[in-house]
Amino acid sequence: MSIPDIATFFRIDPVEEGQLETPVPVIDLDVVARNVLRWQERCDALGLANRPHIKTHKLVGLARFQLAAGAQGITVQKLGEAEVMAAGGITDLLMTFNIVGAPKLRRLAALARRTAISVVADNTAVVDGLARAGRDAGREIGVLVECDTGAARNGVQSPEAAAELAGLIEATDGVRYGGLMTYPAAGMRTTAAAFLAQARDRIAASGIGTNVISTGGSPEMWNDEGLEVATEYRAGTYIYNDRALVAAGACTLADCALTVHATIVSVPTPDRAIIDAGSKALTSDLVGQDDFGSLPDLADARVYKVNEEHGHVDISVMADRPAVGDVVRVLPNHACPVSNLYDRVALARSGRLLGLTRVDARGLVW
Amino acid sequence: MSIPDIATFFRIDPVEEGQLETPVPVIDLDVVARNVLRWQERCDALGLANRPHIKTHKLVGLARFQLAAGAQGITVQKLGEAEVMAAGGITDLLMTFNIVGAPKLRRLAALARRTAISVVADNTAVVDGLARAGRDAGREIGVLVECDTGAARNGVQSPEAAAELAGLIEATDGVRYGGLMTYPAAGMRTTAAAFLAQARDRIAASGIGTNVISTGGSPEMWNDEGLEVATEYRAGTYIYNDRALVAAGACTLADCALTVHATIVSVPTPDRAIIDAGSKALTSDLVGQDDFGSLPDLADARVYKVNEEHGHVDISVMADRPAVGDVVRVLPNHACPVSNLYDRVALARSGRLLGLTRVDARGLVW
Repeated sequence: MSIPDIATFFRIDPVEEGQLETPVPVIDLDVVARNVLRWQERCDALGLANRPHIKTHKLVGLARFQLAAGAQGITVQKLGEAEVMAAGGITDLLMTFNIVGAPKLRRLAALARRTAISVVADNTAVVDGLARAGRDAGREIGVLVECDTGAARNGVQSPEAAAELAGLIEATDGVRYGGLMTYPAAGMRTTAAAFLAQARDRIAASGIGTNVISTGGSPEMWNDEGLEVATEYRAGTYIYNDRALVAAGACTLADCALTVHATIVSVPTPDRAIIDAGSKALTSDLVGQDDFGSLPDLADARVYKVNEEHGHVDISVMADRPAVGDVVRVLPNHACPVSNLYDRVALARSGRLLGLTRVDARGLVW
Repeated sequence: MSIPDIATFFRIDPVEEGQLETPVPVIDLDVVARNVLRWQERCDALGLANRPHIKTHKLVGLARFQLAAGAQGITVQKLGEAEVMAAGGITDLLMTFNIVGAPKLRRLAALARRTAISVVADNTAVVDGLARAGRDAGREIGVLVECDTGAARNGVQSPEAAAELAGLIEATDGVRYGGLMTYPAAGMRTTAAAFLAQARDRIAASGIGTNVISTGGSPEMWNDEGLEVATEYRAGTYIYNDRALVAAGACTLADCALTVHATIVSVPTPDRAIIDAGSKALTSDLVGQDDFGSLPDLADARVYKVNEEHGHVDISVMADRPAVGDVVRVLPNHACPVSNLYDRVALARSGRLLGLTRVDARGLVW
């Protein structure tokens, strides 16, 4: 299969080198393409359907590239993301969040009329609402039962409860049972697999087939453990990677496609530089790290504190002070919420700037 | 002076009760008006110029209300905010951040042509750039010397260094010395006052007058300590208030104008409810708190963990479980970066919903 060049998937407003304003995420499309293709190869080898989560990039162009590379469909986390992706021509979507409330169910019905959107549920109130939306749409909505296999977030608490909810879904007009879904806890993929296999077998015992068992997560995507039960994998962050994934051993620095470019605006003391990227540019997400980002260009100096627009960098690790005006790259702890802060991101190839592109699905909080 | 009703400062798209989608910040305009007027009264009583920081709300309507109530001008933190406020008709602006780099200096020059914008500097490289922008604009730009009086962020490190930089500014074409500016560290207002008084006196000794001494911060705005040296006060968060300011004793819960409305989407265990507001709705800012927000409607239950779209609420403090579908209010730790996440926020009056309004200056990261 021949995949069109990744840059052709975007509308890019050119920016000349040196004219890019900071702070801004710069995304290296060559690294992105490598990350996408390598993961698709693994899914193909394992016979797993690849359903990447677009919450990380929120770009129709990258979603379409992931599909062109072989993904079966995409994962979204909310209606705003689903609507933008559907408007971009994507029709196979899984929304991995309980959809609740009349206004949202109306939007879901509208989406169900024109796409193959599946959703999840972990309780009967959610199933009732989804069923109303399916009847409104005149089309049964596929509903996967979300299982809490150790992450202690959403999800039914036992294989028995999963089977009970699957039976209810199958018996309810407007929805059909679409399978099992989980987001496994760190290091608990074997436990998750046992839960899912038991749920599948209990559901089969009542005469209902489970065609999809969907698991996910970038940190452990290269680990085979417990994968045998799954039919589908949802990974988001792997497309950009980030500092937390390097720390987790899921990738190397060379696999990180997104860095936030920032400018040094002050070097008030020998051990402190201030950059124009604070919590409104990097977020305050720690995700297990001790600080807010690292600067690979500055001897791996750390952003030890963030205010809204100031990043405090410990430059005591450097032999020479950086200069006011220097543009530096910051590797963020967590790429996904960073994308979410910007109306536009910059695209590059192997370090060469291409220009800016609009982040299609940001700002759509609900 | 008669101030027009606060609701008249906005363009509001009406939303019926029960049709508001979550997660969404809801801002009570009656509380906002009370916060604004009470602070203006204090500034008037102290003879302090009031220059509220609009980074908190990013709304032209609220900036104009603050001005109508008596503020002398506004504070902004970046060019995007300045440009939006200038487009909204506001002409007296102070930008409290070092502006660096050719593209930004061009934008500053354009602003200086049509507004009375002042900026800050704490080093000679920044002064050089600002002077070029002033000469481009054909108009001297006022530059305040930023002083590090203990916050260990930007700022010259001593009164001597402040005097030296003031002298350089005064001697440079394109800029004029506009005074002294600091953001004092917590509990260090007396130290800050001593630094500023010494800097002012040293500058006076070289024949240069200091007309503006600008201090700021919401947490200690009601404290008189060290205020005698200041001519101007910049406060931002006070307009909404938040959990960190309640904890700091700067306000009460009744003074908090912004809460994020969220929906309970799952109650998977007796001690856990999941809301549709995670780090992309509340941020991960801790600002000294132990968790990510509190729910005043649910026995002050806490958001003990956030994923991007999930807020994990500890409901073990409650006698009865909340129901899936319940809409609950979350008091965020820090109001300012919350506003920054949303394209639109809801406006209310004493709990009655008015509708949605656009957040004029969000998404303008650089």
